[in-house]
Amino acid sequence: MTTIKDLKGFCYPLTPEGRASLVGGLPWHYGTEYVVISYRANAAAVAQWLPAPLQPGPEPDMCYVAFSRWWSVWDKGERMPSINPGRTQYQEAAIWAGCSVNGVPGQICLGIWVTSDFSMARGWFMGFPKKLGEVMIGDYDPINPCMSELGIDSKITGICSSNGERLIRGSITIDRQIDKSELPPPLGRPLFHIRHFPSIVKSAKPSVLELVRLGSENWNWDPTIWAGTGELEFYPSEIEEHMALAPVEVLGAYRYRNGYTFDGGQVIHDWTKDL
Amino acid sequence: MTTIKDLKGFCYPLTPEGRASLVGGLPWHYGTEYVVISYRANAAAVAQWLPAPLQPGPEPDMCYVAFSRWWSVWDKGERMPSINPGRTQYQEAAIWAGCSVNGVPGQICLGIWVTSDFSMARGWFMGFPKKLGEVMIGDYDPINPCMSELGIDSKITGICSSNGERLIRGSITIDRQIDKSELPPPLGRPLFHIRHFPSIVKSAKPSVLELVRLGSENWNWDPTIWAGTGELEFYPSEIEEHMALAPVEVLGAYRYRNGYTFDGGQVIHDWTKDL
Amino acid sequence: MTTIKDLKGFCYPLTPEGRASLVGGLPWHYGTEYVVISYRANAAAVAQWLPAPLQPGPEPDMCYVAFSRWWSVWDKGERMPSINPGRTQYQEAAIWAGCSVNGVPGQICLGIWVTSDFSMARGWFMGFPKKLGEVMIGDYDPINPCMSELGIDSKITGICSSNGERLIRGSITIDRQIDKSELPPPLGRPLFHIRHFPSIVKSAKPSVLELVRLGSENWNWDPTIWAGTGELEFYPSEIEEHMALAPVEVLGAYRYRNGYTFDGGQVIHDWTKDL
Amino acid sequence: MTTIKDLKGFCYPLTPEGRASLVGGLPWHYGTEYVVISYRANAAAVAQWLPAPLQPGPEPDMCYVAFSRWWSVWDKGERMPSINPGRTQYQEAAIWAGCSVNGVPGQICLGIWVTSDFSMARGWFMGFPKKLGEVMIGDYDPINPCMSELGIDSKITGICSSNGERLIRGSITIDRQIDKSELPPPLGRPLFHIRHFPSIVKSAKPSVLELVRLGSENWNWDPTIWAGTGELEFYPSEIEEHMALAPVEVLGAYRYRNGYTFDGGQVIHDWTKDL
Repeated sequence: MTTIKDLKGFCYPLTPEGRASLVGGLPWHYGTEYVVISYRANAAAVAQWLPAPLQPGPEPDMCYVAFSRWWSVWDKGERMPSINPGRTQYQEAAIWAGCSVNGVPGQICLGIWVTSDFSMARGWFMGFPKKLGEVMIGDYDPINPCMSELGIDSKITGICSSNGERLIRGSITIDRQIDKSELPPPLGRPLFHIRHFPSIVKSAKPSVLELVRLGSENWNWDPTIWAGTGELEFYPSEIEEHMALAPVEVLGAYRYRNGYTFDGGQVIHDWTKDL
Repeated sequence: MTTIKDLKGFCYPLTPEGRASLVGGLPWHYGTEYVVISYRANAAAVAQWLPAPLQPGPEPDMCYVAFSRWWSVWDKGERMPSINPGRTQYQEAAIWAGCSVNGVPGQICLGIWVTSDFSMARGWFMGFPKKLGEVMIGDYDPINPCMSELGIDSKITGICSSNGERLIRGSITIDRQIDKSELPPPLGRPLFHIRHFPSIVKSAKPSVLELVRLGSENWNWDPTIWAGTGELEFYPSEIEEHMALAPVEVLGAYRYRNGYTFDGGQVIHDWTKDL
Repeated sequence: MTTIKDLKGFCYPLTPEGRASLVGGLPWHYGTEYVVISYRANAAAVAQWLPAPLQPGPEPDMCYVAFSRWWSVWDKGERMPSINPGRTQYQEAAIWAGCSVNGVPGQICLGIWVTSDFSMARGWFMGFPKKLGEVMIGDYDPINPCMSELGIDSKITGICSSNGERLIRGSITIDRQIDKSELPPPLGRPLFHIRHFPSIVKSAKPSVLELVRLGSENWNWDPTIWAGTGELEFYPSEIEEHMALAPVEVLGAYRYRNGYTFDGGQVIHDWTKDL
Repeated sequence: MTTIKDLKGFCYPLTPEGRASLVGGLPWHYGTEYVVISYRANAAAVAQWLPAPLQPGPEPDMCYVAFSRWWSVWDKGERMPSINPGRTQYQEAAIWAGCSVNGVPGQICLGIWVTSDFSMARGWFMGFPKKLGEVMIGDYDPINPCMSELGIDSKITGICSSNGERLIRGSITIDRQIDKSELPPPLGRPLFHIRHFPSIVKSAKPSVLELVRLGSENWNWDPTIWAGTGELEFYPSEIEEHMALAPVEVLGAYRYRNGYTFDGGQVIHDWTKDL
């Protein structure tokens, strides 16, 4: 007789071998290339997305949009790039806001579009409200006779669209190098996320609705961190609510690369008990 | 102060307005066009995918592959086809097996690939182990001078691929009309599914791991149900485990259309208590 | 020895068997479902897209946008829907303007986005300036308990995007049935197109630059032709020039289905001789 | 009055401003990252794809498959990566064979799948028989804690699929660095291609059918050229004819990067005069 313990896999599908799981087990290892545009939103609007015990952060209007290119593998997935490269590469565009929990300043992802199913699912497990989208990020190959090495005066643009709508367009025009300590808040702060999974029973409370703090370790930073002028535009949508978080003032833009390992998080609050 | 009750939406993202939710609230309404190939698999292999209290069904080797085209809306979503058509249309390819629970014969979806993010998410809430894939299904438009109305001798083919791999190819060559009572088991039986959502805490038991029975109501059937000869081929994959469920004998093929409403399900067993 | 006559195929790739050709030989057979929004553009702007001997049409500002769903096969391709369904189905969005040639009123496609490679190539051979895009068109399945048969008050929306930009959004709200004779010009007029293929020699004149008239035959019409209120919006683009053809006044909207055969065209003028 | 000289653009659509052209004018500038698997095919089969004056090359069975990632811009397109990044990046998979013309050894692309419309069109102008496909190429980001810098023992895999069919899978396992002079033929030889554009007149000879020699200049090479063991598999298709060119023996594999400028080609033979 088959028991539930005979089925393997970190997530769907649960199978006899566990090989088909859309996402493999923890830890997950990431390498990323970021284009970030820092901006001020309407602080009152941001606050509406932050349910207690989430609170506005120390700079309650500070947000950023991040366009990012990812190289990732999961535990025992070192060979995945040579088995199926598509399961290790993807792109994202995300809207981040500052927040705090019990006085600890943090950050939260309030909207995010991604180009692959496994990244969408993996994000859901971490409280990222991921949808599929099309994400383009400018890139230069200095071996092309008409392109230069990334540097002063380079301009990189990101464009995010979904459901046939262009949602966000942002860019950096690089004008200097900085130290990573100069990246503005809430960049670098801990991630506090809302994890959610609905019940199958109509009108029942969600099966999962919890505030989590995500960990990270094994940080690597590429020491070259570019800063510059930012441009950022949000476009109206029939579907999305991102216009509520649209830029009031663009503050700056950054381009950097880092890598880290995610090996799980902690549950800080279980909202299902409040419902 | 914002509380969790101020955030709206059936699923991610939870927002002030609830409009951006990837999937809207129950009930969900479906219209479907199916190409089904009925087949015998290896009964012992099927049994390995059915953890107690799921058991093999009365015909423990009976499976089918369904290629399907969907028109769906969610509650208060009647206007969605005119707001964003892409959020109402998609295609699927799925592998179904017979099963039983406490002596009640049913069916379970063991593998499924779908063409849109909202359908993938909606499936996850219902225990469908959905991944993204490319699904093509043959179609004829009799107004084309070189195409005929669907009928005797028409051949319809479905092809499912994912991650750059062709996974399944199936077809029907129509040779007769039948009554829906002639559709072979497990077609038409209740759906018993495994709902799963991992914990964010490493090595913790899943947040959700439960056996559910899905309801349905408001059934409409197009009275024209075609039957015929089936062809079905599964292709090897570096990723998927569907070969374990590959056809040993193809039994027949069907093409029909129906519609129904899904308004939630019941939890039959909570496996997290067994772990 | 292999000679050029040993290579087969209507177009690339030319191969020993000719089976791999992206598009098969003439004639080509089409079935189509159209949502058309008729509008007035700026007549002077339209005229700028019409090089002599193309001239503005009798109603020099009359244009329309057509969102369309296609079922097509090429010669000896009757079995294609059961070999590879994806090579027979696609969607398009197109901007059409009235024109005339030597006093014969006609129409010309000035911008068009399509969802498949074979349709893009086939269009190029016919002088359609096709690019790839994402095209969504609303659809209703009356077997869905929450959807109705198409009819009075139904609203159908089309959305066209490309390169991450939403370009055009249009819709019809049906309010009556009409006869096909009531479809406004330039609908139904002959197609005059600019066929172009660049030279590989730098700064040389194009290899092909000719005015063609496209034929059609074997016309079938679904007798149900819907008319109604139109909505139409063009969105700014960093890439496209469609804004020059944007609606000044929306006139009406139509939804109809027809089918026909294309078996070649005639060359009316060879512009390479003028260069 | 508008004349043909008032319309601008290197290719479709020809417009008043020329900005919307799917491909911009010459010269075109490329940067590329290649994974190449060198192999022996059946020489008699290769010869069947080479119409006189094309002849088999000095090593008549030598072929290679190239998976490649591209960064490209066209003339005056230096700003394109910051206007629309998607119009500068794409991936390809191609089958190449050796050939010769009038005693000059060269190479010819016999099958190629690409991920973007502009690259497909640009290829057509150069005699590449491009279709759309899905192309994945493995990549490593050493900033990921679980990935290493590319080097000895790294394995890179490419997968090409199209129309829901997996067509080719190839990989390199790196075991040494080489000098570019060690790359095997026909790599590095001149490109002789068949340029083709059908007539719109039924049964007429093609509008364009010519043998061309493509130029190149401004070559840049990344001095690090990796060599290693190759794996290569071709999969059967209902559509493509690549199996005729399948590997009989895999010889080796290479990974390198280069860049160059294409500023046009010469016509060597006009086959339309032979028909």
